[in-house]
Amino acid sequence: MNNEYIKGVIAYPITPFTKDDKVDIPLFKRLVERLVKSGSHGIAPLGSTGVLPYLTQEEKRAVASACIEQVAGRMPVVIGVSNLTTADTVSEAQFAEKAGADAVMIIPMSYWKLTDEEIYTHFKTIDASISIPIMVYNNPATGGVDMSPALLMRLLTLTNVAMIKESTGDIQRMYTLRKQLGEDIRLFNGANHLALGALTAGASGWCTAAPNLIPHLTTDLFSALEKNNLQRAQKVFYHQVELLQFMVAKGLPRVVKAGLELMNEEAGYLRAPLLPLNTDEKDELKRLLDQCHQKMFHP
Amino acid sequence: MNNEYIKGVIAYPITPFTKDDKVDIPLFKRLVERLVKSGSHGIAPLGSTGVLPYLTQEEKRAVASACIEQVAGRMPVVIGVSNLTTADTVSEAQFAEKAGADAVMIIPMSYWKLTDEEIYTHFKTIDASISIPIMVYNNPATGGVDMSPALLMRLLTLTNVAMIKESTGDIQRMYTLRKQLGEDIRLFNGANHLALGALTAGASGWCTAAPNLIPHLTTDLFSALEKNNLQRAQKVFYHQVELLQFMVAKGLPRVVKAGLELMNEEAGYLRAPLLPLNTDEKDELKRLLDQCHQKMFHP
Amino acid sequence: MNNEYIKGVIAYPITPFTKDDKVDIPLFKRLVERLVKSGSHGIAPLGSTGVLPYLTQEEKRAVASACIEQVAGRMPVVIGVSNLTTADTVSEAQFAEKAGADAVMIIPMSYWKLTDEEIYTHFKTIDASISIPIMVYNNPATGGVDMSPALLMRLLTLTNVAMIKESTGDIQRMYTLRKQLGEDIRLFNGANHLALGALTAGASGWCTAAPNLIPHLTTDLFSALEKNNLQRAQKVFYHQVELLQFMVAKGLPRVVKAGLELMNEEAGYLRAPLLPLNTDEKDELKRLLDQCHQKMFHP
Amino acid sequence: MNNEYIKGVIAYPITPFTKDDKVDIPLFKRLVERLVKSGSHGIAPLGSTGVLPYLTQEEKRAVASACIEQVAGRMPVVIGVSNLTTADTVSEAQFAEKAGADAVMIIPMSYWKLTDEEIYTHFKTIDASISIPIMVYNNPATGGVDMSPALLMRLLTLTNVAMIKESTGDIQRMYTLRKQLGEDIRLFNGANHLALGALTAGASGWCTAAPNLIPHLTTDLFSALEKNNLQRAQKVFYHQVELLQFMVAKGLPRVVKAGLELMNEEAGYLRAPLLPLNTDEKDELKRLLDQCHQKMFHP
Repeated sequence: MNNEYIKGVIAYPITPFTKDDKVDIPLFKRLVERLVKSGSHGIAPLGSTGVLPYLTQEEKRAVASACIEQVAGRMPVVIGVSNLTTADTVSEAQFAEKAGADAVMIIPMSYWKLTDEEIYTHFKTIDASISIPIMVYNNPATGGVDMSPALLMRLLTLTNVAMIKESTGDIQRMYTLRKQLGEDIRLFNGANHLALGALTAGASGWCTAAPNLIPHLTTDLFSALEKNNLQRAQKVFYHQVELLQFMVAKGLPRVVKAGLELMNEEAGYLRAPLLPLNTDEKDELKRLLDQCHQKMFHP
Repeated sequence: MNNEYIKGVIAYPITPFTKDDKVDIPLFKRLVERLVKSGSHGIAPLGSTGVLPYLTQEEKRAVASACIEQVAGRMPVVIGVSNLTTADTVSEAQFAEKAGADAVMIIPMSYWKLTDEEIYTHFKTIDASISIPIMVYNNPATGGVDMSPALLMRLLTLTNVAMIKESTGDIQRMYTLRKQLGEDIRLFNGANHLALGALTAGASGWCTAAPNLIPHLTTDLFSALEKNNLQRAQKVFYHQVELLQFMVAKGLPRVVKAGLELMNEEAGYLRAPLLPLNTDEKDELKRLLDQCHQKMFHP
Repeated sequence: MNNEYIKGVIAYPITPFTKDDKVDIPLFKRLVERLVKSGSHGIAPLGSTGVLPYLTQEEKRAVASACIEQVAGRMPVVIGVSNLTTADTVSEAQFAEKAGADAVMIIPMSYWKLTDEEIYTHFKTIDASISIPIMVYNNPATGGVDMSPALLMRLLTLTNVAMIKESTGDIQRMYTLRKQLGEDIRLFNGANHLALGALTAGASGWCTAAPNLIPHLTTDLFSALEKNNLQRAQKVFYHQVELLQFMVAKGLPRVVKAGLELMNEEAGYLRAPLLPLNTDEKDELKRLLDQCHQKMFHP
Repeated sequence: MNNEYIKGVIAYPITPFTKDDKVDIPLFKRLVERLVKSGSHGIAPLGSTGVLPYLTQEEKRAVASACIEQVAGRMPVVIGVSNLTTADTVSEAQFAEKAGADAVMIIPMSYWKLTDEEIYTHFKTIDASISIPIMVYNNPATGGVDMSPALLMRLLTLTNVAMIKESTGDIQRMYTLRKQLGEDIRLFNGANHLALGALTAGASGWCTAAPNLIPHLTTDLFSALEKNNLQRAQKVFYHQVELLQFMVAKGLPRVVKAGLELMNEEAGYLRAPLLPLNTDEKDELKRLLDQCHQKMFHP
């Protein structure tokens, strides 16, 4: 399987914990199974939704293996392998490849604001160490560094860098990338609340935690646009936009956990310092979910 | 004619000056005529493109009258009447109504950052003084104040406030306004480089200086979307996006003047402190215009 | 009198209006007299506090003349002559010189974000038209454009440009200017809440509306620092800092008017769209003024 | 030793690596010894300068122990124990206390933007697990979250929270904290280029990597202000300000390493993705260091 097959809605599972703060692998597998059955086109564990930076190396590897095993080739699996140091990133990327991942996703996490040269060298070292596709992930809000279109262009000259996930939340960036990189580069949208704008801009896919809560609305949006039916896409998007905005505002793992529980699904515990949504937030989420789950319209 | 008829591409003419810094009314009328003939759906003198704030009251009135006279009912005319003080805004709005404008456009210009109450009272006073539709214009970059969706909602309760022009450049704002205000409110996009995003978000129209240079591309984009043909709209948009980004980056009156001259059209002089584009900028503009004017594709 | 004499606390009077929206010149003169008697070291009508952009040319000239006449040489008078167009700025600067101003203050007001070249040419034209010192005023929040240290350096090569007033609110800017321009350039602080930081950074003076309400605290701060007594300056600053922050947050003309009235001084009316502080804001202002007016300490 | 004794210049050592990417403990101890002998008033390993987030738990503990051992009670040692999860932070804080640290420094590192409640609970859990003073560190640029004065006030109600280190780079924040928290709270400045402003605002100390390169200038600045001699402090500050600005712009570990080597001191290797300064940057650093090392003045 190669990255030609990676497009559409890429679903992000949460990483559930037991009451005593261990990763709950059996529950994680059940949550992965839900996503596989939900109609999404791919799956990406160990992203922000999966609280990647909060996990030990051992935990990350257990999650990666469990996901690949559970999916069993039914859809592409993109494993998040971002780490602060280059050495740790290489090591996790190699593990993911060996475990059978279809691709890896890497955000250049930074404590210090990295220079372009540091980011390029970071990716060059990783690129030389594996032979599966790399999705370069740009998200200044969580990663702390904003990669310019020029830098992304340079990264795309590396052998395995084949996809870009953009989460600045600025639609202009999407236009510039698409114009400068051309139609052949696979661009993915990582900003939930921008989904309509990014997909109409020509993104190949949407990386999102929303399929945990509203799978059909996410795939409906994608397929309406694939069928060149903008009017339907608008209706589908405005039906879910407030929930998407809420997810972004309140944090993906917290909202997904609360939402699953509101739908009577088991979701495990969060790892501290993360705390569950408070009562007001849960009430608001319930209202938004109910709205989404109402029969929408007969197109 | 009422505001039901105001939609689509609203073209913004520049205000040309003579060598000795007078407004060149005959040339202005010729430029207006070009826009009317270009296929745009409406025209809006005395906006940012028309350097409204640089004009005396007498000059503004001469421009407004000349535009209405030249258009002669062939398309809606929206007159910009923004002023720093409430009294001057009322006085220009009343003049525009009497002169035959179809609507007025008002940005709450501020030197001091106005409070919501001050902005509301400003509009309430103006609203009570005229009886033609008001397009409320939000543009923090030029006006200095950013009106929240809640404040816009409050302004929409006023009798004549019927349209909103949004130029924050943040597509998210467009989604929120459309969701909160509903489909009946006419939203206009004022950020050229956001045209695809704003129109796919459901904007009724696009307020733009681009018809001075590339009229067919602007109307093609609008009509492709009206026909629910997203794929064609994407092609048309990416054909012009770099020019739109350049216009935003370099300033509308300067780029329109230079572009007209590159196309062998007379464009008059700028009023100081504005200066013409420099040589490098003109070369870049020529390249972008040539690109736009190439035969694009056979859909 | 030349700009060697302009230093210390430069007081900014408000422009009071009558109930029917005329400038109240007799009241303005009484307010100027208060400031002259209050111990300030200079006076600057037609700044932001004086709502310069809300006045007609005729009103501005009446205010300038009234101020110069009332001060009658007892302290330096710096007249604000900023206008959007170069031509109007030249004309007001020439009027101020003829009327007897000691200096003029100019912020490059912009609707369009001006380029460095446009700003330089603007000042060059003005510089050539007068022969009194110019205080260049940088305030992106009200003027819409942020002049870099490099541009300010270039402006300082003009004959009459002799002082810089910095109001970005970023103390770092003050350090960079002082380091790059050297000790000979007279830097003035225009950000009230930065007064301690700017003066300890080496600013020659403080341009402020605070003397309308707390004249002794402003001059005490300046003189403590002139005497190299940092500990006293800290005490004096922390005694007034909350009032200074409040003035910045709520807008200078609104706070000065309300404060004068709380102290039983006549302050006239504001010009719309400006509105008086609301009741909660007035209560808060009363609390802060009472705090300031308490006997502070015995040094 | 308690936190009463922690004030003045707190020096931040780098963590040097061997060629094969191991922490070089013997070299680290020599670098610590240089700082102890340099006249600084305290030392803080495992901060940003010490690339804390790039180290494994084992490496962090080796560094903490080595520092405490080398200092041997000659000055206070503040150990950085920040971690993304609450559990890891508790564990490192407990290790530091057992190893003999005088205090711990904690920034609420975040991948997800933490809520106030999450940050408070994070600190509450840590607070209950140790009995040495905690310095709460606020630095949105590296930590990703900006703690409000109200939240800091709440954290100060915890038993061991006794000091605040502020690195937003906004002097206004320092004024607000000092005014709201009162003179008894020990505030530390962590923004090198703000040193003059923060210390004149009343900060108790300055947390800085600069003593690695210019120890006497940092202590001279502090002691001039302690002696209420602002004029001398200004001279000392402007003598070093460009170097401080360069350190902030280029990243502390990279600049300290390059600077030590320019002074013929061994500094080891950086851990990837960090790269050495390039040639132009080294030349600029040399120029700035030479300037600093010139005999300054005879006060």
